[in-house]
Amino acid sequence: MHVLITGAAGFLGQRLAAQLVARQQLNGQPIQRLTLVDQVAPALPDATTDIQFVTEARDITAEHAWDTLLDERPDVIYHLAAVVSSAAEADLELGMAVNFDATRALLDGCRKRGLSSTRLVMASSVAVYGGELPEVLDDTTALMPQSSYGTQKAMCELLISDYSRRGLIDGRVLRLPTIVIRPGRPNAAASSFASSILREPLNDEDAICPVPTELELYVMSPGQVIESLVHGAEVEAERMGDNRAFMLPGVTVRVAEMLEVLCRYAGDAGLARVRHEPDARVTAIVASWPGRFRTTRAERLGFVADSDFNAIVEAFIDEK
Amino acid sequence: MHVLITGAAGFLGQRLAAQLVARQQLNGQPIQRLTLVDQVAPALPDATTDIQFVTEARDITAEHAWDTLLDERPDVIYHLAAVVSSAAEADLELGMAVNFDATRALLDGCRKRGLSSTRLVMASSVAVYGGELPEVLDDTTALMPQSSYGTQKAMCELLISDYSRRGLIDGRVLRLPTIVIRPGRPNAAASSFASSILREPLNDEDAICPVPTELELYVMSPGQVIESLVHGAEVEAERMGDNRAFMLPGVTVRVAEMLEVLCRYAGDAGLARVRHEPDARVTAIVASWPGRFRTTRAERLGFVADSDFNAIVEAFIDEK
Repeated sequence: MHVLITGAAGFLGQRLAAQLVARQQLNGQPIQRLTLVDQVAPALPDATTDIQFVTEARDITAEHAWDTLLDERPDVIYHLAAVVSSAAEADLELGMAVNFDATRALLDGCRKRGLSSTRLVMASSVAVYGGELPEVLDDTTALMPQSSYGTQKAMCELLISDYSRRGLIDGRVLRLPTIVIRPGRPNAAASSFASSILREPLNDEDAICPVPTELELYVMSPGQVIESLVHGAEVEAERMGDNRAFMLPGVTVRVAEMLEVLCRYAGDAGLARVRHEPDARVTAIVASWPGRFRTTRAERLGFVADSDFNAIVEAFIDEK
Repeated sequence: MHVLITGAAGFLGQRLAAQLVARQQLNGQPIQRLTLVDQVAPALPDATTDIQFVTEARDITAEHAWDTLLDERPDVIYHLAAVVSSAAEADLELGMAVNFDATRALLDGCRKRGLSSTRLVMASSVAVYGGELPEVLDDTTALMPQSSYGTQKAMCELLISDYSRRGLIDGRVLRLPTIVIRPGRPNAAASSFASSILREPLNDEDAICPVPTELELYVMSPGQVIESLVHGAEVEAERMGDNRAFMLPGVTVRVAEMLEVLCRYAGDAGLARVRHEPDARVTAIVASWPGRFRTTRAERLGFVADSDFNAIVEAFIDEK
């Protein structure tokens, strides 16, 4: 079993690699080789193992970027490399090149090599949704992305479904909820506050909440995302159906509830570290993301949500 | 006002050109120039007019194919050129090149020339729908195309919405119902019977009905499609919203009702010309197309359906 991970220097890529090494196997097969690719050479998991590692810096937008990687006929490809939302919005050509063209080149590389049973697991995003939406979204809700990032992800979803329907690849696209609690520092993402308002007080630091507390988010813990990525490579092809993209089951939580749970673990002193400074720009972006889903398809395929928001915070505290 | 039509040698392109010449104006502006482009040089409308015509054979997949066309800064572009469903299914690369890459090159050509107010009207298709669908589809129903043609059209829809949202172009994508009654001869399209079972008996010829009579279709007359294309260039940009693609209002009709209307105009002798020869392959394809829509967005924008199926048949008879 040979597994290739793109975007492997990122937060999810590193964590997925560590999890695969800890498991030693995927889909019942021992992992013999793990290839980690990113713009900068990804760090190797810190573990004693028989798995053969390859770590490589590669620009996936370059011509023939996939050739040598696909010549080795990986059994599973985790395609996590992406230009994130704000960067794709700032630079249309860069976003198209990385988020769409590189994915298409990957698909065509698989097609030309007959990698029809290679399982391609791609991360998509709640950003594919937008516009006028029903109260509760489900598997038949239209994608009306309100960003170039969401547009590029939605186009990849369509292409992966079509290539899978044609039997050219065995694709699976998981739309990720907002990931809470991300480790590390706040970043420029509009959703950054969702981790900050918990992580910082739990680390005895101050945080800013830029949104109204009645705002609803649809969230998943980092650990559950990794479990879902692993499961995404293990679902039998015949159970997938023709549409290969679907929303993962998340937890719907109001910001007020998040702060209640924070108070449970960090006390009033922790809660007092969250300063409320409404930011209309951030609120507009985050409020456009739907907060309620019926994820029937994902659940039928065996994907599961975190049990509740309490468990998400406990997992973060346990990992500290 | 300078109007460019691609796919202008086709049935719709020719009819649209004739209609524009008859109107002499579009969106209140006199048409000064009409550029007709197709793989083979399109025929010119047969009319005395002051409009300046350019007719040209051009491969829109060639590098720089759009350059000289866009250098003239057309005010309205009707992008009707496409590889049809069966051909796109047979040849993935051809379909991607014509249906997707050429459209993307058109969009990028507009972007690079700052044609932000050029109205791009593109024809899409009911083939963008498929998979597990609700009984009645609406503007929030997911696109789950079950063909490469539908996939390529859906990707163009997303891209045109994104380029419009960014203010790079003023796009409008009209998803066409099944067009009934097409003039001419039966063709290889799975939907060909829908015209045949009326056109042939009305022309004193035999026809074959390959589907069960309880099958429902969602249809529009050629004349109404042309009216919709004209209207598509006339809707004010500020009314369009961010999602630029929507289903046009059609008429839901069972095959049995179509045959009833046929009987009204062609009598029992006409009806007897329709031989029922069930074809599982054709039925599977056509039955996967949804037959019922709530087209709220299109109606709000002023698009209208044929009044009923009777009117569709009458229009055909009048035009004969």
